[in-house]
Amino acid sequence: MDRRSFLKNAGLAGATAGAATLAAPALASGKRELKMVTTWPKNFPGLGTGAQRIADRITAASEGQLTVKLFAAGELVPAFESFDAVSNGTADMYHAADYYWLGKHKAFGFFTAVPMGMTAAELEAWMHFGGGQELWDELAGQFNVKSFLAGNTGLQAGGWFNKEINSLEDLKGLKMRMPGLGGEVLRRLGASAVALPGSEIFPALQSGAIDATEWVGAWNDMAFGFYKVAKYYYTKGFHEPGAGLSFGMNKGVWESFTPGQQELIRSACMAENNYMFAEYNHNNGAALETLLTKHNVQVRDFSDEVFDAIGRKAEEVVAEVAETDDISKRIYESYVKSRKETSAWSSLAERNYLTARDRILG
Amino acid sequence: MDRRSFLKNAGLAGATAGAATLAAPALASGKRELKMVTTWPKNFPGLGTGAQRIADRITAASEGQLTVKLFAAGELVPAFESFDAVSNGTADMYHAADYYWLGKHKAFGFFTAVPMGMTAAELEAWMHFGGGQELWDELAGQFNVKSFLAGNTGLQAGGWFNKEINSLEDLKGLKMRMPGLGGEVLRRLGASAVALPGSEIFPALQSGAIDATEWVGAWNDMAFGFYKVAKYYYTKGFHEPGAGLSFGMNKGVWESFTPGQQELIRSACMAENNYMFAEYNHNNGAALETLLTKHNVQVRDFSDEVFDAIGRKAEEVVAEVAETDDISKRIYESYVKSRKETSAWSSLAERNYLTARDRILG
Repeated sequence: MDRRSFLKNAGLAGATAGAATLAAPALASGKRELKMVTTWPKNFPGLGTGAQRIADRITAASEGQLTVKLFAAGELVPAFESFDAVSNGTADMYHAADYYWLGKHKAFGFFTAVPMGMTAAELEAWMHFGGGQELWDELAGQFNVKSFLAGNTGLQAGGWFNKEINSLEDLKGLKMRMPGLGGEVLRRLGASAVALPGSEIFPALQSGAIDATEWVGAWNDMAFGFYKVAKYYYTKGFHEPGAGLSFGMNKGVWESFTPGQQELIRSACMAENNYMFAEYNHNNGAALETLLTKHNVQVRDFSDEVFDAIGRKAEEVVAEVAETDDISKRIYESYVKSRKETSAWSSLAERNYLTARDRILG
Repeated sequence: MDRRSFLKNAGLAGATAGAATLAAPALASGKRELKMVTTWPKNFPGLGTGAQRIADRITAASEGQLTVKLFAAGELVPAFESFDAVSNGTADMYHAADYYWLGKHKAFGFFTAVPMGMTAAELEAWMHFGGGQELWDELAGQFNVKSFLAGNTGLQAGGWFNKEINSLEDLKGLKMRMPGLGGEVLRRLGASAVALPGSEIFPALQSGAIDATEWVGAWNDMAFGFYKVAKYYYTKGFHEPGAGLSFGMNKGVWESFTPGQQELIRSACMAENNYMFAEYNHNNGAALETLLTKHNVQVRDFSDEVFDAIGRKAEEVVAEVAETDDISKRIYESYVKSRKETSAWSSLAERNYLTARDRILG
């Protein structure tokens, strides 16, 4: 996906609300009103509704002691000023994806998703038990932000293609919409990766200006109607194998809370890790059924030759991020170590089970 | 695993605490003290520590308005009287695994795990979005209990064997410790499945009284030292593909809470779904590494012939549960429908990605 350009095109990222002053959390009879800015259009399915659930959960569970008001992209600050707004106290917290802040620091990508990287379960194991949270605290702390994982989309699909991809030759010259590090991987394999805004994808695919696009997964993809203009759906993506959403809070505001309030906020975010991932898994499954039975979509998988070339190139591209500075190196090394350990078990256990179960159930 | 017999043997299930009177939640200056009983020994890694985390989370996030005191198995009531204790109000809530209540109703197993059933992610998708919670509310409600998922162990390992299993012939006469529906599957394939208490497994395996055993996964299994007496570790299990733990609350107590308190409790449980699964994934990965590098364990996988026969038999055994009564039939049908839909997506996306990534990363 590329929420950035999607939002920009929707005119949201350009909006401002004149919130330049540093607003302390409102205090009224012991109650605090807190502002959550987000990078999502209001109630965007999964992402925006997830942010709203976190706000509502904190408000309800604190019996209104902490009342969180959500501002959709552009309502208080432009979408991609959310990080600065929280950093400088214009807003108290954001819900976003931390790879939007690559301009601040390249290592933020590891806390959302990187090509050939961790799945949702692996990312959460790293964050809670493999040292990920401590490294994130160190990195985000440099910007006066305290962050938590707060939702996950699961593996994002490989995308919609108007021709089959049977060999590496088929990638050469392919015009595909894919932003970020994933796009860089494709470029190194001879494709022409572009970063079209979300709302421009459908017409571009329809007119033939692009040959292929990725977005999120079956649920969000179906809503955009790509099946109407591209016949082949490659479900196995490589670019975002489990995109973790993030909740970032102004560090001073975070530290002003009681331990109980901190626990309530931490729980609200962890709950969303569970809930949003379940939502994507359920809805992607239901949407795939509809795509197959009602819209005659042709599901395809990349050949080993093609996917392995993509995967090896992705490893190179991601490893280059580690060269940025000391903290990037430590984050990369911790990430790779945790991915290796966790996947060693899950591959031998759950993944092998799923392979066998599919064969048995047909 | 078989926590039931493990606990029984540890003398915990037999303990009583004379808590026969119906105790209303204590009230003092608006604060309520709540009793959580569990089926786990105090701080049993993963399961017991997870229950403690939920208790602590509710206590902290409510600023002590709801103070939850945890009673390990046997401290207030015997482990397997936890359900009755909550149902009749002796305790306010339990943390357990609902397949312990099969004696109350056979359909409770679907809310923990069944052979060839759902993984953790699938179970949570069913529960939150596929109708599972509503069916659980209906079933548990008949017993005056309101339940939530509250943790998951991930896929439980196939187990420890003192000989390789290369064909269905090797299962004939095999004495393996495996309780419940999984054991029934093995019996129908000619094995002699037994339900030894946890603490008796190691000596039985050592003496040759049994040829094989399952327990949980690499983390909990290593702590029991099975690698010292059984050489082959089959990581891919079929019997509990993602055991969901449960938090059950006395329905009257649940309904006495404010909406905010209900949200706080719901969030605390959902947070544990995220946290405990991450804990098992991380620790199973780390333990597998130790088993392989320090203890020279030989990892094995069942052949397709063996696993497919097990899988088909498991489908029969589980389908028989649906014949119990109307609600069992509805639960089974909802479960199978949701499993099919969710897995259709996750197989084509995440599972295929993991298969390819393993090949690429080596």
